[in-house]
Amino acid sequence: MLSVAVIGYGYWGPNLVRNFASIKEARVAAVCDQRPERLESVRSLYPAVKTTTEYAEVLDDAGIDAIVIATPVSSHYALASAAFKAGKHVWLEKPMTAGAEEAVRLIAEARQARRLLHVDHTFIYTGAVRKIRELVAGGEIGDVYYYDSARVNLGLFQHDVNVIWDLAVHDLSIVDHVLGARPIGVSATGVAHVNGNHANIAYLTLFFKNSLIAHFHVNWLAPVKLRQTLIGGSKKMIVWDDLEPSEKVKVYDKGITLSDDDSVHKARIGYRSGDMWAPRIDATEALRDEAQHFAACVAAGKPTITDGYAGLRVVEIAEAATRSLDANGQMVRLELQKDAE
Amino acid sequence: MLSVAVIGYGYWGPNLVRNFASIKEARVAAVCDQRPERLESVRSLYPAVKTTTEYAEVLDDAGIDAIVIATPVSSHYALASAAFKAGKHVWLEKPMTAGAEEAVRLIAEARQARRLLHVDHTFIYTGAVRKIRELVAGGEIGDVYYYDSARVNLGLFQHDVNVIWDLAVHDLSIVDHVLGARPIGVSATGVAHVNGNHANIAYLTLFFKNSLIAHFHVNWLAPVKLRQTLIGGSKKMIVWDDLEPSEKVKVYDKGITLSDDDSVHKARIGYRSGDMWAPRIDATEALRDEAQHFAACVAAGKPTITDGYAGLRVVEIAEAATRSLDANGQMVRLELQKDAE
Amino acid sequence: MLSVAVIGYGYWGPNLVRNFASIKEARVAAVCDQRPERLESVRSLYPAVKTTTEYAEVLDDAGIDAIVIATPVSSHYALASAAFKAGKHVWLEKPMTAGAEEAVRLIAEARQARRLLHVDHTFIYTGAVRKIRELVAGGEIGDVYYYDSARVNLGLFQHDVNVIWDLAVHDLSIVDHVLGARPIGVSATGVAHVNGNHANIAYLTLFFKNSLIAHFHVNWLAPVKLRQTLIGGSKKMIVWDDLEPSEKVKVYDKGITLSDDDSVHKARIGYRSGDMWAPRIDATEALRDEAQHFAACVAAGKPTITDGYAGLRVVEIAEAATRSLDANGQMVRLELQKDAE
Amino acid sequence: MLSVAVIGYGYWGPNLVRNFASIKEARVAAVCDQRPERLESVRSLYPAVKTTTEYAEVLDDAGIDAIVIATPVSSHYALASAAFKAGKHVWLEKPMTAGAEEAVRLIAEARQARRLLHVDHTFIYTGAVRKIRELVAGGEIGDVYYYDSARVNLGLFQHDVNVIWDLAVHDLSIVDHVLGARPIGVSATGVAHVNGNHANIAYLTLFFKNSLIAHFHVNWLAPVKLRQTLIGGSKKMIVWDDLEPSEKVKVYDKGITLSDDDSVHKARIGYRSGDMWAPRIDATEALRDEAQHFAACVAAGKPTITDGYAGLRVVEIAEAATRSLDANGQMVRLELQKDAE
Repeated sequence: MLSVAVIGYGYWGPNLVRNFASIKEARVAAVCDQRPERLESVRSLYPAVKTTTEYAEVLDDAGIDAIVIATPVSSHYALASAAFKAGKHVWLEKPMTAGAEEAVRLIAEARQARRLLHVDHTFIYTGAVRKIRELVAGGEIGDVYYYDSARVNLGLFQHDVNVIWDLAVHDLSIVDHVLGARPIGVSATGVAHVNGNHANIAYLTLFFKNSLIAHFHVNWLAPVKLRQTLIGGSKKMIVWDDLEPSEKVKVYDKGITLSDDDSVHKARIGYRSGDMWAPRIDATEALRDEAQHFAACVAAGKPTITDGYAGLRVVEIAEAATRSLDANGQMVRLELQKDAE
Repeated sequence: MLSVAVIGYGYWGPNLVRNFASIKEARVAAVCDQRPERLESVRSLYPAVKTTTEYAEVLDDAGIDAIVIATPVSSHYALASAAFKAGKHVWLEKPMTAGAEEAVRLIAEARQARRLLHVDHTFIYTGAVRKIRELVAGGEIGDVYYYDSARVNLGLFQHDVNVIWDLAVHDLSIVDHVLGARPIGVSATGVAHVNGNHANIAYLTLFFKNSLIAHFHVNWLAPVKLRQTLIGGSKKMIVWDDLEPSEKVKVYDKGITLSDDDSVHKARIGYRSGDMWAPRIDATEALRDEAQHFAACVAAGKPTITDGYAGLRVVEIAEAATRSLDANGQMVRLELQKDAE
Repeated sequence: MLSVAVIGYGYWGPNLVRNFASIKEARVAAVCDQRPERLESVRSLYPAVKTTTEYAEVLDDAGIDAIVIATPVSSHYALASAAFKAGKHVWLEKPMTAGAEEAVRLIAEARQARRLLHVDHTFIYTGAVRKIRELVAGGEIGDVYYYDSARVNLGLFQHDVNVIWDLAVHDLSIVDHVLGARPIGVSATGVAHVNGNHANIAYLTLFFKNSLIAHFHVNWLAPVKLRQTLIGGSKKMIVWDDLEPSEKVKVYDKGITLSDDDSVHKARIGYRSGDMWAPRIDATEALRDEAQHFAACVAAGKPTITDGYAGLRVVEIAEAATRSLDANGQMVRLELQKDAE
Repeated sequence: MLSVAVIGYGYWGPNLVRNFASIKEARVAAVCDQRPERLESVRSLYPAVKTTTEYAEVLDDAGIDAIVIATPVSSHYALASAAFKAGKHVWLEKPMTAGAEEAVRLIAEARQARRLLHVDHTFIYTGAVRKIRELVAGGEIGDVYYYDSARVNLGLFQHDVNVIWDLAVHDLSIVDHVLGARPIGVSATGVAHVNGNHANIAYLTLFFKNSLIAHFHVNWLAPVKLRQTLIGGSKKMIVWDDLEPSEKVKVYDKGITLSDDDSVHKARIGYRSGDMWAPRIDATEALRDEAQHFAACVAAGKPTITDGYAGLRVVEIAEAATRSLDANGQMVRLELQKDAE
């Protein structure tokens, strides 16, 4: 049984502790946070879990196999690096690091330490994303034309990163996983509405080879919560509304048809409209499945499906997007490092 | 009573004829279209209306006061110019012209002919947009932070223009009217999924002075129809869903609050969530109100609220956006001509 | 080509005229209404249609084949009876008559005159109801357990009948057509909120043999418009929301499973939840299809699918439901006359 | 601090334990259930809570002040009665008892023991119901014309009671609290679709003095979950959708207007349509507020707002409704006992 320590018990930490505590493949041995009142909260719910404000104590504990890091992103590299030095496996919250350089170094350090480096791209483990990937990979929707997402709500302004690093990172990880294609450039626009803060609204366009395009609208200052994705394909199209209690993913048998129109040497466009179908979506909590996957990969010595390379690919794009945003939308080319796999 | 001739009886022409026929301030004297089968359709519904395939006949008819032009945009300039020469008032469908240069010339020709030049930005005359403008102008939502719109559906691919000139022109005219501010630059991305065709999906960002930003998603290849607009303000926020049968406009008493946080010399952000309110929206058909407004302005010799200058402002941005789209999002600065008003 | 006269140009009359005018199988020869201002409205839209305030004129016109009656229900019997005497075919708006006795007499008079008697149960001709009937008849949903409908909105209080005769008649005709089963009793409750008026809110339960049950909520005084139907079956279940622009009919692969539980001699109930599927629904205007069906049946000398017997079955239940409503829900047994077919 | 024991750790028990454990006014001293595996689950989450399969142990424990009973309804009377004999306060899940007679006896036993008898009508403590009651009591919606609710979903068939006793009891308690009026009769229809089981679908009409009417649709066999309530008033109307994440309660400034129409000695009905308003709803978990209210009332020696009388009123109607259902909708008069208060 995998013994984990969770570092950082803020917004996401409680979910990590709850899920690792509920699966039989792992146990939560310790929780570390610099705020004593947060540890108090851990103790009242989980009397058997050791709590500490000292990270070193956790690293020194030979009974702990893996470190689950849920702290602000600026601390990710240092905490993970120390964990590898101490011979621990690492689970890092998204975004993996504050920049690509740190990500590359962490991948190398994990390899050197022969330890697992996992990045928590939670959405990859949801029933909805698994179903969408299956539909795309199985050819059901044909060639993918575009991926369009709106991820907006009010709240949770982050102090250390802009909205791209917080919300768009979800979309970047999903697109990376679902489309299996690497963008060749990114254009981003956005603005900060609070003086001295990072951009709280941003729009990203990812350019791919061929005519595939992806676009994300991310916004911390919206009156309503939206989690809406459109995926257009040559055969079918998908609408994914993650806020729907059921029927999250709808597949539309709709599209255009092209026929030659000799008189003008142009394709004549027709429209096709058929049935809609909402496949049953597995409702298991994604984090639970992900925790089990992590424990199984540690046991087997195999990388998780959202490993350091997946984390790096996302960070590279977020970094480029931030540069584009600062340049009012000018495209930043992505010459992504080849996966070492 | 204003006597009008409608030129072009395709998709929008029937709506124009029906509305001009139904108001007592005007009558439809003639309909002109090059396709005899379209005129057949006019005659069966409106036996009293004269039909012709010859534009010259309409221009020569001294009984006709105004020409309503609903033809493809490439023909707008020539048809309107000839109308002014014949001493007619002109109602032009949106977009006003295929480029800013033509728009500038038409404005001059209208002035010289002392005739009215009206551009059919229909949305400006809807109850929803009138209410939103009232809320913004009245200070109800405070400083406007952003305007975000999704206008997507399947169908009506245009052959002569890209999706910006078709769908985004609506948003450009609404933003021009509602915000009363002129953008200083535009960044656009998009792609064509049909070989040899114009872009069928596009994303536009308009930059304004201060931190106001506007963004439009326009798409001819979407599985569902969306007409969804978010407007964020410092006091309140608006959600406008034009497909809602009633309650199209919702005003949310939501937002952020800022308080000084001396320890870090940064604003501390709080969140505020109050009631929602959906004002009753006038459900009169916009085109009917607009036709009456046009007739009244002709009678009074005064410009309509969507005159040639309004049309020009929209065309200038659409033109710049198309250039930005071709440059993968690089911002194109807008040095808009001063209104001659 | 069938030549029809439309009697009554109030709320529904214009739809009848428009549809009969638009099909090639029929023409509108005349419109009759006692209100001259309504006839004025006909003349401005249809200059070729003869208008009159005198019903006798229409009956005397040998060029007219069929009479389409869209007047208040209290006048239905007398108008239709006179039409049969004049040798005309008859299209009657729903409800067919003010009571079952009149309906029985009309059926006899139509037979004697050898003329067609059609009742306008428009919903039967919609794409949604046709699809639902196909699903039920094809065994797709298994045994039907219940049919539940809410048909509520604000407005159109009728002076001469209660809400059952106005709104529930739609549901009664749909159930008659879709389930193909005859209820054995009806229980109804309801109340009038305007002094001296008929009930404006009513609830009807239809009892069938076996455990099939149908229930309708009809209401003229609701803040929102609802047209929502649930159909539960042993295999699948249907949700029909007639206000959805597309995806009106959704088929859920959901239900219960029963297994023996010997310990308690009772069935153990399990739950099954699979995909949802929204078949494409034909969007043709129902009234247009119905007008064509009527014209074709007149030509062929065959009854329409909503003939006098269908009208009678609905009227019998509405009559019994009104009696039950007056008796605070006490069930009224239905000993329906056998169809003479 | 109030020390409670929770009896029955099935579907609702965990929510009771979690909420009593989270408030500072109370503590969970013990959990009792006959199924050892359920107690195992308690121990893993709450190591400090005593667990037992023996109710007597709990009653004998002088350190326990109150018994929270969340067992099948058939056991409610015996368990509560024993608790009063042991000098404990009692919190009973809804429905209070399996019949009115038991409820009357429990009220008497509580009085004799000078202990509190509380019935868990949870909805009364939600922000939505509190807001609706405020709107009704404050006269905002005028005279209440009707209350209409649909409470349907798939699942949780109960073996010992019909759907009225499970789902409609919620609506009965809400109407009792919100309208503050007592029905004079009830008509119910429904049917069982599983052989040997109780009715799984039911429709209830409550008759009140004047023209107020209430109706509930409850259904365990529906393809979708609905929690939708319409409340019609002479001034305004309310739509309450409890599944909406926010904007649960919408107030419509809509209705009819009456004016004298001398010609026919009847009221002429007009329609009024104004703004819609969605007040902010307190999102605190109702059960938490209710637990605090219970603890405070025990401390103060005062009855809770959902005391034994409230429980009795609901049980009396459920009992009458079941009789009416068996009689196919025949109204059962309610000659409710006067409150002893």
